[in-house]
Amino acid sequence: MKLDSPEALEARLREIGARRYHDKHPFHALMRDGALSRGQVQAWALNRYYYQSRIPIKDAALMSRMIDADLRREWSQRVVDHDGAREGQGGVAKWLHLCERLGLERERVLAEEGVLPATRFAVDAYVHFVRERPLLEAVASSLTELFAPAIIGERTSAMLSRYDFIDEDTLTYFSARLTQAPRDADFALDYVKRNATTPELRETVCQALLFKTDVLWAQLDALHFAYVAPRIPPPGAFVPCEEEAD
Amino acid sequence: MKLDSPEALEARLREIGARRYHDKHPFHALMRDGALSRGQVQAWALNRYYYQSRIPIKDAALMSRMIDADLRREWSQRVVDHDGAREGQGGVAKWLHLCERLGLERERVLAEEGVLPATRFAVDAYVHFVRERPLLEAVASSLTELFAPAIIGERTSAMLSRYDFIDEDTLTYFSARLTQAPRDADFALDYVKRNATTPELRETVCQALLFKTDVLWAQLDALHFAYVAPRIPPPGAFVPCEEEAD
Repeated sequence: MKLDSPEALEARLREIGARRYHDKHPFHALMRDGALSRGQVQAWALNRYYYQSRIPIKDAALMSRMIDADLRREWSQRVVDHDGAREGQGGVAKWLHLCERLGLERERVLAEEGVLPATRFAVDAYVHFVRERPLLEAVASSLTELFAPAIIGERTSAMLSRYDFIDEDTLTYFSARLTQAPRDADFALDYVKRNATTPELRETVCQALLFKTDVLWAQLDALHFAYVAPRIPPPGAFVPCEEEAD
Repeated sequence: MKLDSPEALEARLREIGARRYHDKHPFHALMRDGALSRGQVQAWALNRYYYQSRIPIKDAALMSRMIDADLRREWSQRVVDHDGAREGQGGVAKWLHLCERLGLERERVLAEEGVLPATRFAVDAYVHFVRERPLLEAVASSLTELFAPAIIGERTSAMLSRYDFIDEDTLTYFSARLTQAPRDADFALDYVKRNATTPELRETVCQALLFKTDVLWAQLDALHFAYVAPRIPPPGAFVPCEEEAD
C-alpha cells in the first residue's frame, strides 16, 4: 500500500494498531481473563506508574519544541490532564490512587522502588524520542491513543468482574481517559495527516507509531518475564508479598 | 559498609559485580552449559551486535565531555579498539565476523534488522546515561569491564567445547578483549577512586555501576523471554531458521 494520501496514512496507522498495540500481548490477555494474581496486578500498576509519571514530562518536552503558540496551548491540556490543576488531581494522582487501592505503599511507589529496569529503559526511550526526533515524529508517537479506548473498555470491565480486590473507585483513572484519549488522538491524527505531506514523511509517521508500540509491548514483555513466566525478577525488582511466601 | 575511603569504594564495587553482573543470569548459564541452540546463539549475537556498535558512540560521547586532553587521549584508545584503525579491524568488525560465522547475513546484521526493542532501549539508555550524567558517573558506568575477563573465559571455553558450530576463528573478538578489558577497567577504577572524594560521590559511583549491570541484565532478560522461555518474540523480532520450521 503506497502512502500517497492522508487517507492511506490513516489506514496504515490503524493497521499498525491492529497488529502491534499491546492489547495483543499475552500479559494483557491474562489480565483480561482474570488470570493474574493480586501480586501480578500490583507489579503491573507499580511499573505502569513509572510510565504515567513520565507522560507529562514527555508532553512538556514536546511543547518545548513547538514554535507555534496555538499548538503549545492545545498540547498543554495533556500536561494538565496528567498533572492536574492542583496536587492530588490529574491522571498521575489517579494512578497513584489505583496503586494504593491495590495495596502498594504510596511512598514506595513515589520513590520508584522496585520498578523493572526494562520499564525505565523503555519509558526513557520514549521521552528521549520525543526530545530528539523531528516534531512530526514526536507527535506521531502519541498516536497509540487511537487504540486506547478499546483496551480500556476491555481491561476495566474484566478487572471489575474478575478481581475481587478491584472496584470502581480503584479505576477512576480510566474513566477520565475514555474521553481524553480520543480527543488527543483525533488532534494528533489530524496533525500528522496535514503535516506529513509526502510519502517519505508519512513513512516516518508510521515508524514513529511502530516505535511507540514497541515501547508499550516491551513493558509487558518485562512484566511477563519477571512475574508470570519464567518468573525471574531481575535483581532489585519488586517482589509481591504472596510470592515472598512461595 | 560505609564508603569512607577509596578502598571501601572498591570493595563495594566488587561486591556489586559479584551479585549483579550478567554472569549470574540464567541465559548465561544456558550458554555456558551448552544448552542453547544455534538459533538462540544467533539471536544473542545479533542483539549483542547492537550493543557492540554503540560502545564507540558511547565512548565518543564520554570523550566529548572531558575537558582534560590527557583523559581524552587515554579514553580514545577505547574508540580505536572498537572501531579499528581502518575498516574491517577493531572489536565491532570482529563481532560482525562472529555473527557471520554463526550463519547470520552480514547486511541484515548491519541493518540492525530484528533486534529486540528491549535491546535498543537498554543500550540507548546506556548512551544517554553517559551523555547526561556527571562525568564521574559516566566513567563509573564502564566498570563492568572489571568483571569481563571471568565471563569471557567461561563463555569462550564453553562455546568451543560444547557448540560444534563455533570454533576459535569465530571468537577472535574475545581474545582481544582479554587484554583490553583489564587495562580499561584498571584505568577507570583508579579514576573513580581518585575522583570520588566523599562518601556521597562514592555512592553515585556505585549507583552508576548498578545502572550498568541493569543494562546488561535487561538484555539477557529480553533474549531469554523471546528465545528461551516462554519464547514469545515481540513483533518484528529476528526468528531463527530452526524456529521457523517448528
